[in-house]
Amino acid sequence: MDIQEFVAKSIGHWRSQRSAHHLAFGHFEAVQSEIEIAALTGDDPAVIELCKAYDVDPQAAVSPFRMTWEGQSDWDENEVIKGTCVLIPIPDPNQLNRGKLLRDQGYAETIAATGDYYITEDGTFVLTTAYDRAAAEEKIWFVNPNVRCRVSLIKTSAGSGVVTASFSSEIRQNS
Amino acid sequence: MDIQEFVAKSIGHWRSQRSAHHLAFGHFEAVQSEIEIAALTGDDPAVIELCKAYDVDPQAAVSPFRMTWEGQSDWDENEVIKGTCVLIPIPDPNQLNRGKLLRDQGYAETIAATGDYYITEDGTFVLTTAYDRAAAEEKIWFVNPNVRCRVSLIKTSAGSGVVTASFSSEIRQNS
Repeated sequence: MDIQEFVAKSIGHWRSQRSAHHLAFGHFEAVQSEIEIAALTGDDPAVIELCKAYDVDPQAAVSPFRMTWEGQSDWDENEVIKGTCVLIPIPDPNQLNRGKLLRDQGYAETIAATGDYYITEDGTFVLTTAYDRAAAEEKIWFVNPNVRCRVSLIKTSAGSGVVTASFSSEIRQNS
Repeated sequence: MDIQEFVAKSIGHWRSQRSAHHLAFGHFEAVQSEIEIAALTGDDPAVIELCKAYDVDPQAAVSPFRMTWEGQSDWDENEVIKGTCVLIPIPDPNQLNRGKLLRDQGYAETIAATGDYYITEDGTFVLTTAYDRAAAEEKIWFVNPNVRCRVSLIKTSAGSGVVTASFSSEIRQNS
C-alpha cells in the first residue's frame, strides 16, 4: 500500500472512541469524537502555504488532506475538544513507502510539525514526530474498509519513557 | 525477530491497563490487571499434554509459556477477572516468522483454541484465531523493553463486523 491509497481509504466521516492511558498514574481517559477527513487539491492555498513554510516544492505533495475533529472527554464534559489541521505527505522519491508528513498543527503541541512516515508490508501507517519536549509515535491501520485503529504514544523527548498511550477505534459513518 | 526472541522479551511481570471499546454501543470499559508470563520447559507435563491434545509432536514446540492474569473491570468492581493459560508456539518449519499457537484456553471463549501467528518485519506479533461464533485478531509489539502494546479485535465469525476493539498498555514491573 502506498500513501495515496492509504489517504484515499481514510477520506470520509468517522466516529471515534479514544482511550488514553496515562501510564505513570494508571489513569484512563475516554474521548468520543467525530472526525472528518477531506481531500485537498494540490493548488489549495492552504497546501501551497504550508509547503512554502517548510521550503518544500508544492509539486512534491501527494494526496494532501484536511482533518477536522470535535469531541468530548470524560475528564471534563463541559470542554469541547475541537480542531482542524492540514496534512501533506511528501513521499521519498527513492522509497515508495516512506516520506515526510507536513502538518500545520501537531497533536502533542499546538505548533507546526514535520513527521517521518512509513507504511509496513501489512499496511500499517507508522508516523514518528519529534517535538521540542516530546516525541510522538503513531500507528494507523484498517481492519476493514469501515474500521480504522490508531495507537498513539507520547514519549519524553529524552528517550524511551512512554508518558501516554492512547487507542482510537474509528467507524466510518454514512455522510 | 523470531518467536523465541519475542517470547523471551515477554517473560516477566506486567501491570496492564486495558480499554475495551464496545463498538455498537460506543461503550468504554476499563480493566486494570497484573499479568505474569513465565517460561515453561519442553518437558513440562502441561506442555506435553496440550501438544497431545492437538496431535502435535512436543519436539516441535518452541518457547512454551504460561500466562496468568488477575484484574478488575470498572463495569463490575466486585468481580475479579482471573485466569491462567498455557501457550505453545509451533513455528512453521519453512517460514521462520510464522506458525501456530496452541492454547489451552482462548480469550473470546473459554475453550482450547489454535491460532495462526506471524511476526512482521517491524517486530509486531500478529495472531488470528477462529472460534465457533467469533474470530479474534491480536497485535502485540514492544515500544521498548519495558512497555508492550496489545490491540485485540473480536469479530463476528461470519465476516468483517468488528464487535469489540481493545487496547492494553503493559508496563514491566520489578519482581
